[in-house]
Amino acid sequence: MAAVREKLPDYVPASPEEIEQLPKTPRELRKLFRSGEWTRPTTGLCIGYTNVNVAIVPKSLAYDFLVFCQRNPRPCPLLEVLEPGDPIVKDLAPDMDMRTDMIKYRVFKNGELVEEPADLGKYWRDDLVTCLFGCSTTFEGALLDAGIRPTWREGRRHGAFDTNIPCKPAGRLSGPMVVSMRPIPAHQVDTVVKVTSRFPMHHGAPIHIGDPAAIGIRDINKPDYGGSSEMRPGEVPVFWACGVTPQSVARASKPEIMITHASGYMFITDIPSAQQAVS
Amino acid sequence: MAAVREKLPDYVPASPEEIEQLPKTPRELRKLFRSGEWTRPTTGLCIGYTNVNVAIVPKSLAYDFLVFCQRNPRPCPLLEVLEPGDPIVKDLAPDMDMRTDMIKYRVFKNGELVEEPADLGKYWRDDLVTCLFGCSTTFEGALLDAGIRPTWREGRRHGAFDTNIPCKPAGRLSGPMVVSMRPIPAHQVDTVVKVTSRFPMHHGAPIHIGDPAAIGIRDINKPDYGGSSEMRPGEVPVFWACGVTPQSVARASKPEIMITHASGYMFITDIPSAQQAVS
Repeated sequence: MAAVREKLPDYVPASPEEIEQLPKTPRELRKLFRSGEWTRPTTGLCIGYTNVNVAIVPKSLAYDFLVFCQRNPRPCPLLEVLEPGDPIVKDLAPDMDMRTDMIKYRVFKNGELVEEPADLGKYWRDDLVTCLFGCSTTFEGALLDAGIRPTWREGRRHGAFDTNIPCKPAGRLSGPMVVSMRPIPAHQVDTVVKVTSRFPMHHGAPIHIGDPAAIGIRDINKPDYGGSSEMRPGEVPVFWACGVTPQSVARASKPEIMITHASGYMFITDIPSAQQAVS
Repeated sequence: MAAVREKLPDYVPASPEEIEQLPKTPRELRKLFRSGEWTRPTTGLCIGYTNVNVAIVPKSLAYDFLVFCQRNPRPCPLLEVLEPGDPIVKDLAPDMDMRTDMIKYRVFKNGELVEEPADLGKYWRDDLVTCLFGCSTTFEGALLDAGIRPTWREGRRHGAFDTNIPCKPAGRLSGPMVVSMRPIPAHQVDTVVKVTSRFPMHHGAPIHIGDPAAIGIRDINKPDYGGSSEMRPGEVPVFWACGVTPQSVARASKPEIMITHASGYMFITDIPSAQQAVS
């Protein structure tokens, strides 16, 4: 495990050699997250298992949040909602503790990111409702199987961007949609559309293909989330609705508190991705 | 219009000849529903347009209902949620008035079906939240295109049944799942699975195929909803999770009030079914 404990710059995906040393099941991996032995992004880890995004809101905001998710199913396709105050996941990874078993969280208070804690001990409350929803990394394995080169194996991250696409508001919640981007060789764009369409609960087909300016992105090499990206000749930027959207909603709507995962540090569930695909 | 005003036994689908006389767009059709000129089931009407199920609950129950839908996405895949007290549909059929533009409603009070009114005038309240969710009749056109014989063209209804499959509870709401059944020739069952899988927001693939007793159905020819059905030699009963499920939840959970459509009398939206399919 020595290699994985090295201090490395944030957001650099682990190398295939480093991943090789890690446990192969989500349950074992989450133990390393809980103990703090793995502190880097989840990119490339346990490919083939369902990844999910996390947003935790007080019960007083939860109705608005559920309606927001219903009205914006592309960025926020809901997979599981826990009871108020209950941090224990039931369906996606039984016994997973939402307070400790992720790598890094983000705590937003009144629209400000106030901390990125490694656990939620001091923030947990009896009225917090955990909402879990799909993530595009769920279809990484299906893209690999279809012959799409994963840029993260080259040390390239696919970043996420704020856009000018407004989400549909719900009660006190509104804000722009965040999208993730993958650089795809032009001749493979059709394959990528077909493969990802099969994962409607994980953002599904791309929400936009090509011209970044059309959705309000100024510099395709400077993502708003997840460090730098790098387009290469012959590649088309392909965009998916992204589960980071609640973070932009927190900034725009300024709820008293909202807690999310840190982008790139996903909750890896016990559910094989193939179970989430439309056949 | 004379033919369609005839008094006919409830639940008998309209004949192709009768349907031929009707308007071809959902918007025009809904005018006949509103005026009371068409009072029979929607089976076979405007095939190729998205059909939806309706459940209307007070705001005090709406959080539980949204969580119930999230936990039971097979019977209750949410497509639109209106603001409390607002009866005007926004996305699925702009300007459709939920109080008047359906054919027949069911009003449940404390678990009892108290009336099947043709409009909701006397029941409407400022705190009622309208929830609209997918319906298997949305994929009738896709089944037709795939060469599946529609039994309703023979005057046969595909009924719905209570089952022994428990829904996942949410707050004050629980109850058994209701399923719809279509009799499918054995050699076409695989086609039916493939076609309907493409409509995840309209109950998707069958939830059960074959032996009715395995899901608690005693007599396949006596549906609990929708009159009698009739199996023929060589046909397999194929079952889908059904949007009538909230009615069984109302009976089991006895909320102060829940209003639904009458089964078989669907809300026909302006959205082409093909838009709802995963390609």
